[in-house]
Amino acid sequence: MSYFDAASAAPLHPVARQALLASLDEGWADPARLYREGRKARMLLDAAREAVAEAVGCRADEVVFTSSGTRAVHTGVAGALAGRRRVGRHLIVSAVEHSSVLHSAEAFEAEGGAVSRVAVNRAGAVDASAYAAALRQDTALACLQSANHEVGTVQPVAQVAEVCRAAGVPLLVDAAQSLGWGPVEGDWSLLAASAHKWGGPSGVGLLVVRKGVRFAAQGPVDERESGRAPGFENLPAIVAAVASLRAVRAEAAEEGVRLRELTERIRVRVPELVPDVEVVGDAERRLPGIVTFSCLYVDGEALLHELDREGFSVSSGSSCTSSTLTPSHVLKAMGVLSEGNVRVSLPPGVAEEDVERFLDVLPGTVAGVREKLGAPAPATVVQAQELVVDSLGKRCPIPVIELAKVFGEVPVGGTVRVLSDDEAARLDIPAWCEMRGQEYVGEEPAERGTAYVVRRVS
Amino acid sequence: MSYFDAASAAPLHPVARQALLASLDEGWADPARLYREGRKARMLLDAAREAVAEAVGCRADEVVFTSSGTRAVHTGVAGALAGRRRVGRHLIVSAVEHSSVLHSAEAFEAEGGAVSRVAVNRAGAVDASAYAAALRQDTALACLQSANHEVGTVQPVAQVAEVCRAAGVPLLVDAAQSLGWGPVEGDWSLLAASAHKWGGPSGVGLLVVRKGVRFAAQGPVDERESGRAPGFENLPAIVAAVASLRAVRAEAAEEGVRLRELTERIRVRVPELVPDVEVVGDAERRLPGIVTFSCLYVDGEALLHELDREGFSVSSGSSCTSSTLTPSHVLKAMGVLSEGNVRVSLPPGVAEEDVERFLDVLPGTVAGVREKLGAPAPATVVQAQELVVDSLGKRCPIPVIELAKVFGEVPVGGTVRVLSDDEAARLDIPAWCEMRGQEYVGEEPAERGTAYVVRRVS
Repeated sequence: MSYFDAASAAPLHPVARQALLASLDEGWADPARLYREGRKARMLLDAAREAVAEAVGCRADEVVFTSSGTRAVHTGVAGALAGRRRVGRHLIVSAVEHSSVLHSAEAFEAEGGAVSRVAVNRAGAVDASAYAAALRQDTALACLQSANHEVGTVQPVAQVAEVCRAAGVPLLVDAAQSLGWGPVEGDWSLLAASAHKWGGPSGVGLLVVRKGVRFAAQGPVDERESGRAPGFENLPAIVAAVASLRAVRAEAAEEGVRLRELTERIRVRVPELVPDVEVVGDAERRLPGIVTFSCLYVDGEALLHELDREGFSVSSGSSCTSSTLTPSHVLKAMGVLSEGNVRVSLPPGVAEEDVERFLDVLPGTVAGVREKLGAPAPATVVQAQELVVDSLGKRCPIPVIELAKVFGEVPVGGTVRVLSDDEAARLDIPAWCEMRGQEYVGEEPAERGTAYVVRRVS
Repeated sequence: MSYFDAASAAPLHPVARQALLASLDEGWADPARLYREGRKARMLLDAAREAVAEAVGCRADEVVFTSSGTRAVHTGVAGALAGRRRVGRHLIVSAVEHSSVLHSAEAFEAEGGAVSRVAVNRAGAVDASAYAAALRQDTALACLQSANHEVGTVQPVAQVAEVCRAAGVPLLVDAAQSLGWGPVEGDWSLLAASAHKWGGPSGVGLLVVRKGVRFAAQGPVDERESGRAPGFENLPAIVAAVASLRAVRAEAAEEGVRLRELTERIRVRVPELVPDVEVVGDAERRLPGIVTFSCLYVDGEALLHELDREGFSVSSGSSCTSSTLTPSHVLKAMGVLSEGNVRVSLPPGVAEEDVERFLDVLPGTVAGVREKLGAPAPATVVQAQELVVDSLGKRCPIPVIELAKVFGEVPVGGTVRVLSDDEAARLDIPAWCEMRGQEYVGEEPAERGTAYVVRRVS
């Protein structure tokens, strides 16, 4: 098996495993206790905190260990918002944040807070000026990821932090995808991360709150972790997390270059090998290990299953809404094609041969899925000025396939109306037009569902 | 070293270690993913949930895994209170609950909720009739521990559950101290527990919510663990936790008898070996491994240090308030002596010789601490009708030591007024009277601090 989903969870780093084993023996006791085992646990915990502070670039007393990256984000957002309640009840997030940030924003809205969602460009990046424009007198907090988890695009954190700092608003950075590669630059105020994204064990998150940031932990508290993360410290896992962070950082420069070359290979060769593919995300400002593309006329879940049968574990942000896949808010915000979406995220140490084998297997796999769905062949004779395609009751990617099938039958200047009641069509029909250089006229309510109108311009 | 603090954290059970190692290789991937590694993780998670359900005596879909026992309690209390918000905003807890329950109650009060704290008897047990009396029309939830974490007293959970059920009020049971010994009896509605109390790894708690219990998870949610425990599942630790629960349960009957005999030995022999000791907690209805006693005229922290030097790791709920020890709300609620408090909680598999060596070492250790503090020698000539002891500025156990030193100098019928500004005196002077069969007259405000008045009756 080739595991290409490191952005979900990385396999445990050998150093993490070793550290975990050692600290299962040394670090199981309560670090708050006065006896020998407790003092030993306390020493391990203190050393771990110092090491993390060094890797993050902060003070040790600014770091708390949480039970997950998600928990770090939830605690960080809620605490920062509560700490600045007097300033106001306005929160800024980007439209492409991890669900933990977006869920925090929704919870805040449910309590009466106001949330601005900053748009991204077609590469998935925000612009610092958009944060500047979103800032208000009553803005309590802004959030921005260091890099996107679905497409790998690196965000301009330092510039956004500067804009926020000038307005006196703290910036919380979700560094889950990037902390293994290096510290987050810029003058941020809070930072969250997750150990199992960098090869540490699950069960450990980081929350950093800079001195001077107003912070009021919400919910029941206890005396552990500065009152910011209640419950017994998961010490063996913390020790393992920190050991693996140091280990991956030591390898980051070299491994980053290698993975970047491998993902570049995928970026370049997939569109050569597979027709009707869009590679998404920024080509330059991106994480080394992530590359994402979408294949027209393909059901994302079917493609995952076929790739799994071929021995490849990848994930998908496809908007083909089966029971298990939900449409990606990231691809939607970018305005790119979401059907047949594949995210390849390479774990450090991945073998070059595995990537080559993926490139060998992919074209046939995509073709097979397309064939089953009856994807379009080259067009035939031109006839009517307007054709209507009834795709009511059919799910993504069928509406786009049916559009493509008849498109050659209308003359240049003619239109196709696609009737669809699948939400994915709203995203994927405009995306198809963009890819094909055709004009997307717009949508109109129809008797059932929506009519999406496309004009043939070439 | 002899580790006698299993009620804080138990060393990792060998079965847990083995299961953890195996599932680090098999269970690191995201169980929500469709590929092979994800499906394997999902199978492990499902199997763990089934096994826990069997051990608890509930349905698998009633179990969620949290990141700690504390988190399970916080989530359970907040969710149950929110689920029954329409019924009312009243919560019942016992006065001797774990701090996680009491902190949840405090957070609820801070939001405007009302909390009743049910008193306990001198053994630390509640009475079901006291819960019945505390129930109101607007009671949303009641909480009760299965057994006390400081003195080992087992609570009448089944009776309290019956009383609550009759009133239509759900009962949340904090089973942290007892789940390794067996399922919780009675018709409870919610249950919380912590794996590292039964020899599992830290980082795993259990929350069980019976079908039909109204429950509304608070804060940001995600799709994991039925929307009740956000964040990536800590699967290797979950698998290890469940494996160790099954292992300790298999050994529970035999080991329970053995530990009960060892703690009984301590219960009986400590008062024979050490003068002025009070063994606290119920002598019969108690956990097998916990025994707690308090030594007059002893500073709890000093005693812990001396025992640590002798190789024994125990904890203390002493009210001698140094920087590190806080007074025990449990001992206070029981109305028993808290000075020189020692909790011995034996881990399964503890060697009998270690317990014998503890009994050998304890008398000399206590005597040494008393000598340093200048504890009283037998009394001398009787004189004044009232003596005043000025203990202002002196910390526990000095006020009690000074009371005891002069007590023989007043005639029967005479009184001693102890001036003290140490909070612990409020608990320990009445407790001393109870132990000595003298009359505690009461307290009066003094120019500085408080005057505690004791009458000599024999």
